[in-house]
Parts: sequence; C-alpha cells; structure tokens
Amino acid sequence: MDTVTELGKKAKAAATVLGLANTGQKNRALEAIALALESNAAKILEANAEDLDKAAENGVPEAMRDRLMLNRERIGDIAQAVREVARLGDPVGRIIGGHTAPNGMTITKQTVPLGVVAMIYESRPNVTVDGAVLCLKSGNACILRGGKEAIHSNLALAAIMRGAIEKEGLPPDCIQLIEDTSRESASALMKLDDYVNLLFPRGGKGLIRSVLENSTVPVIETGAGNCHIYVDNEADLTMAVNILHNAKTSRPSVCNAVETLLVHEEIAADFLPAAALALAPSNVELRCCPRSLRILSDSGISAVPAHDSDWDEEYDDLILAVKTVSGIDEAIAHIGRYSTKNSEAIVTSNLEKAERFCAGVDSAAVYVNVSTRFTDGGEFGLGAEIGISTQKLHARGPMGLEHLTSYKYLVRGNGQVR
Amino acid sequence: MDTVTELGKKAKAAATVLGLANTGQKNRALEAIALALESNAAKILEANAEDLDKAAENGVPEAMRDRLMLNRERIGDIAQAVREVARLGDPVGRIIGGHTAPNGMTITKQTVPLGVVAMIYESRPNVTVDGAVLCLKSGNACILRGGKEAIHSNLALAAIMRGAIEKEGLPPDCIQLIEDTSRESASALMKLDDYVNLLFPRGGKGLIRSVLENSTVPVIETGAGNCHIYVDNEADLTMAVNILHNAKTSRPSVCNAVETLLVHEEIAADFLPAAALALAPSNVELRCCPRSLRILSDSGISAVPAHDSDWDEEYDDLILAVKTVSGIDEAIAHIGRYSTKNSEAIVTSNLEKAERFCAGVDSAAVYVNVSTRFTDGGEFGLGAEIGISTQKLHARGPMGLEHLTSYKYLVRGNGQVR
Repeated sequence: MDTVTELGKKAKAAATVLGLANTGQKNRALEAIALALESNAAKILEANAEDLDKAAENGVPEAMRDRLMLNRERIGDIAQAVREVARLGDPVGRIIGGHTAPNGMTITKQTVPLGVVAMIYESRPNVTVDGAVLCLKSGNACILRGGKEAIHSNLALAAIMRGAIEKEGLPPDCIQLIEDTSRESASALMKLDDYVNLLFPRGGKGLIRSVLENSTVPVIETGAGNCHIYVDNEADLTMAVNILHNAKTSRPSVCNAVETLLVHEEIAADFLPAAALALAPSNVELRCCPRSLRILSDSGISAVPAHDSDWDEEYDDLILAVKTVSGIDEAIAHIGRYSTKNSEAIVTSNLEKAERFCAGVDSAAVYVNVSTRFTDGGEFGLGAEIGISTQKLHARGPMGLEHLTSYKYLVRGNGQVR
Repeated sequence: MDTVTELGKKAKAAATVLGLANTGQKNRALEAIALALESNAAKILEANAEDLDKAAENGVPEAMRDRLMLNRERIGDIAQAVREVARLGDPVGRIIGGHTAPNGMTITKQTVPLGVVAMIYESRPNVTVDGAVLCLKSGNACILRGGKEAIHSNLALAAIMRGAIEKEGLPPDCIQLIEDTSRESASALMKLDDYVNLLFPRGGKGLIRSVLENSTVPVIETGAGNCHIYVDNEADLTMAVNILHNAKTSRPSVCNAVETLLVHEEIAADFLPAAALALAPSNVELRCCPRSLRILSDSGISAVPAHDSDWDEEYDDLILAVKTVSGIDEAIAHIGRYSTKNSEAIVTSNLEKAERFCAGVDSAAVYVNVSTRFTDGGEFGLGAEIGISTQKLHARGPMGLEHLTSYKYLVRGNGQVR
C-alpha cells in the first residue's frame, strides 16, 4: 500500500499528463467509465454487500445503511450521471480575457486545471464516482479519502474507473483512492501542499473544523446550511406559507432547507398558526421563542420552547426554530449573527425592504419571495455540482466544473523588455 | 490596547457598514486620506524618525533603513497613489452573470466585498497605506500587522487614515493596525477565522510557511518568484540576450526577475559568452552547471559552479543560475520541479515549441519572446496591485481590486417553490 505522500506524487505526475488531454480524450474516458460501471455491476454489488454486512454487524442504523446501499438501479443512475458530465462543456482552455499591450505583446488569460484535487468525505459511495469524474472532466487528478463504512464499495469503484481510463490512454493515477481510512491518512492528506492544490472536506462540522485547523492545503468549506426565512409584515401570507412549507419539508436533510423562521411581530398572530397548520401533516417540530410560543399555544397548537442553541442549529431534520422579530433590521442582524451564509429568503411585497435584505444579508444566495431550496448547481445553470461553498474565496454558493479551474496568462511578443 | 480578537470584531462590524457604502462615499474617503497624509507630513516624519533612530541603534543595514525611510517626496508619492486608487473603477456591485430561470425567477450574480482582509507584512510603511486603501476601495475592512521596525510610522499613518475616513462618515474601524508586533499577535490573527475572510502574508519564505501551517483563515500566497528563461536552439540570440539582460538586471529584487537561465546545448557555446558579456557591466554572478561552466571558462569568462540548492534559490539579487539542457522537454521538466509558478519565458522562433512551452509550463504567467518582468498588475491592466498570487485558488498572478471581492446570487421571484 502506497503512503499518502506517494499517492500525492503519483497524482501530481498524472495531473501533468491529464492537464494536456483534449476534450475528446477526456469525454471518451468518461464514457468508458460509465460503461465499465454498468458492465461490472456484479463486482460492485459484491463489494457493497461486504460493506453492508459489516454495517449490519456494527449495528449501523437502517437509514445510514440505505445511504450506503447500491443496487443495479442506483449503479445505472451513477453511470448516467457520468454520461451527463461527458456532455457538459470543457471548462479548461477557455479564453476568459486578454488584450494587446501598447508595446505590441498580447496577453491572453486562459483557464487551466487546478492540478490535484483532494476530497475527504463520509458519505455515500456515489460521491467517489461524482468526485472522480468532475475532476477528470476539469483536467484534475483526484485523491479520494472516503469513510471506512464504504471502503469495499469505494475500492471496487475506483479500480473500475482506473481501468477504464487506462484503456482510453489516460494515466490511471488520475484517480487515487486512499485505502487507509484511519484518522492518520486524513491528517497526512491535509499536509500534502506540495502535491495537492485544493482540499474539499465533505461531511459534518467536526470534519470541516478539523480540516480547517490542520490543513496546509487550500480548503473550500462546503455544505453547512443554517438557512433563514424572514416573513415581513407586508408579505403575502399565503405565499409565505407555501415557501416555508417547501423550504422545510421538500427535502429536510439538505443544506438549503430552512432551519429558522423569523416572523414580523405585527403578523405573527396571523401567520404562525397558519404556518403551523401547513407544517403539521409533515410532523415538523416547532422550537419557539417565548412570544411565538405564546401565540401558538393561544391557538391551541403544540410547540416547544427554543433554547439559545437552537438559533445556531442546522437540524437537517423536520424541526424548525421560530422567532418573532420587531422588523427587517432585527431579522438581518439575527441572520448576520447565526447564519452559515448559505441561503436566506425574505417574503415581502415591499420593494425597499426586499432590496435592503438583498444588500444587508451576506450569504451566497439571497432570495426574495422564492424558496431557499433553489441553491443548487443545476438550478443555477452550472451543470453538475461538486459542492456548495459557504466561504467567499475562490467560489461561493454552488460550485460547478468552472470552479475546478484556475487560469494562466500567456504573453506573446517579439522581444519586448521592460 | 485591544486584543487581536477585539480588533477582529470591530473590523467585522465596520465591514458591514463599509460594504454598503457607495462609490462616491468611498472615493471621498480616499481623497480625504490623500489630503490628510500630505497635511500631516510633519507628524509622519516625526514618527518615522523614531523608527529610523531605533534602526540605527540596532545596527540595521543602510539598505534596509532606506526602505524604512520616509521624506516629503515619498509621502507625496504615497498620497498620489491613493488618489489613483480613487480613480479606479469600483469592483463592488458589478453584475457578472445571471439569467431568468424557466419558472420565472431571476438569478443575478453580483460582486460583493470579501469582508475583512488581513495582512502580515515586514516591508516598508507605504504597504500600510497601499493595503488600507485597496481594501477600502473594494469595500473591505482591513487588519494590518506590520513589522516592529516600522511601528511608529505605521501607527501614525493608520491614525491619520482613520481620522480622515471618520470625517467622511465611514467607520474608522475599517482600518485596524495591530500595535503589538510580537509573534503572538501574528499567531492570534491567523486563528481569527470568525472575523477575517482572507489573510495575505507579505514577506519572506519563513513568514509564508508559518502562515500556511498555522492559519485557519483562508490564505493567499504571494510574492515568491524563482523565474526561468529558456533559450531554445531556434532562438534569435540577440533578442535572447536582451530579454535575459532586462529580466535579470532591470530590477533584481522583485519577484518577476529571472533567477535561472536554461540554455539549449546546441547554442550554449554561442549564447553563454554573449550573455555573460551583456551581464558583466551589472556584475551579475553566474552560478553554472558543469557544462555551462566549461563553455564560459573556455571563453575566458569567470563564473562559479552551481550547487543543487541553486536551482531552488530566489536570489532577488544580481546572481543568475545557469544550466545547459538537452532541449525544451528538459527545460519544461526543470521548471516543473523548481519553479515557484510565478513567471517563466521561452525565447524561440519555433511556433510548435512556443505552444508546447505555453501548455506545459504551469505558472501564473508564461512568456514567449518577452521578458518575465511584465508580471505586474499595472502591465496586465488591473490598475493597482495588492500582490502576485503564486497559488491557483481564487486568484493567480497579479491581484487587483477585483480579486478583493467575492459574489452573491440574488434570486427574485413571486412565490417559486421547488
């Protein structure tokens, strides 16, 4: 088994070759991966069964085992997703600027791959394929460090992908999977700044914090989502109920689901009972500030008191924190204090307040009369999505293929000196 | 004296206000800064004299004392540079993309300030003003941690700038200078990810490495420059001599100066003596590989042997490492191994080799028949320059005002849900 440093060296060498591959070569490799995944489905399912057996032995809860589980249909979906990446435009080699200088030399700004992209993740085996193919399409070698629960599935998937791209003449070392799933291998990866250009932590707060504290490789934070909806006193309350219901219940486990409702005090007595009624069929638990709690209990609706910690909470579950506020300024201040800067919405019919919210809320996506659930690479027109950045450097919000590139300046002349 | 954390909190609060200021307000504040620097020149010179006295006491070499020294002319130049920043376009609030989604909602991608930008630097007091005004123009609060040698000058400059922007109605806390110049204050700043969005280390390798290892704040590496010129066997040798001479001698202390010459073996015997002759009046020391050394000594030109460490060296001085190579592939491989990915040049008249060099060299700026000295914000049309990034994330090469911004998505609709 190679050390993590050896994997890094190999990935860097492979990235140099891959970076020069043209779009056709990369797309043929992607098609080959899709086909190989389908034709090796039995092998993948066998490896996956090992992971599932171990999970059952270890008493892993069923919901988590379902996330781990592959079947022929899911493998087909994964292969289909690979083909869709093949159909996206090549983000490398685009001319994104340039000019001719007064001395006659031309300056051309052109996109290039980042080089080597690493990912530490805890999630489903499909992330192994997603990560690898998005990196491949953008000309980057990748180093994947998945969780131990999925290691057999991940090893099988990586071996199949490596074999497929090798047959198409690209270096298999473009796709590296770290077999060692210990904490030490993750730590070693975080220190690999000689070979790795970008590290994505994909997982819980603990993982992200650990990567931030220890990584000497540039990191992009992704996936946190304590999102807010503020319902103004000048809102269309029916629209507000619809948006809230959609943002909370359509997919509560994702990062663009709403976690905290802020409601203007003047309409709280009208809005809160209507909202509670709409959320009741989905069994959404309401954790309320004292004023909100009083309004709901006056209407005979059950809710629980919120603790201070609830404003910080990303439930990813059918739970909603509820707070009555004095108006838009308190709402913006609350969001400024507690938001993870992913997605926030205002519901209002007042133009001035809508614009104040847009300017005053410092989040990747700010919505006016729209559900927060749209923060997504597909919805925003980026094609595939490798994550949702909650930081401001390099990329913000949904990240697509273009965010896996950098650029260089090419300066051509005939002897210019300065 | 506030702790570094308190400065961070104040800077973040001030950034919220500054982020909403319009271009006119920011430009008036910049003009006020320029005027205040000029009218308080006596105060600045008094503080600077304290720094210079201490430097003399401590036996600081004269070249370094000259870097520290201010006089009326230099203060005038600094004020003039501030006025030039005022005249640049506002990088904030630009609409850089967007579309109307099929469901009728509009998605607008708009530039926003990063928030709080910190800088740890060792250099001249003018960096204090440069950093502050570039941040101000781009809507960012700044936290400046200069070196102890310039602390009196820096304190005077910061106080004058803070006073000037306060009179123009902007929060003085937009400009924070850390009084404590101990190692501890730098370390504390590196951990301030709750309040700081970007940290620039500006200084030597040791500083940059320490920041990379310890910072939980996103970092942009700047300023390293082990730059190469490769002279091909199909080069116009007169042009090659001119370019080499310019790249080595026009300003040897800067990061885009050439440090290593790679020369094709077929023309080494012609080129090296001519190059040495051109560099001789500037007393450039040549540190040569055995073959280059032999060629030079055969021509009666004195040179010294290179050690392996010379290929890694950024001299920032009148020294040039020289290596004879078998051709473009060895040149590209050498650059890939030793370059700091700042600027590299090829001199050739062969188009295919020029394009191979452009594609194969992974540096921020790649030159064909042009001196490396052009890697610069002004030359590349970026207006002012805050540094030259040698990393690939966020910004590469010369960084201007636009690289001190991020963006947000504004999504406006009438009740869209997903």
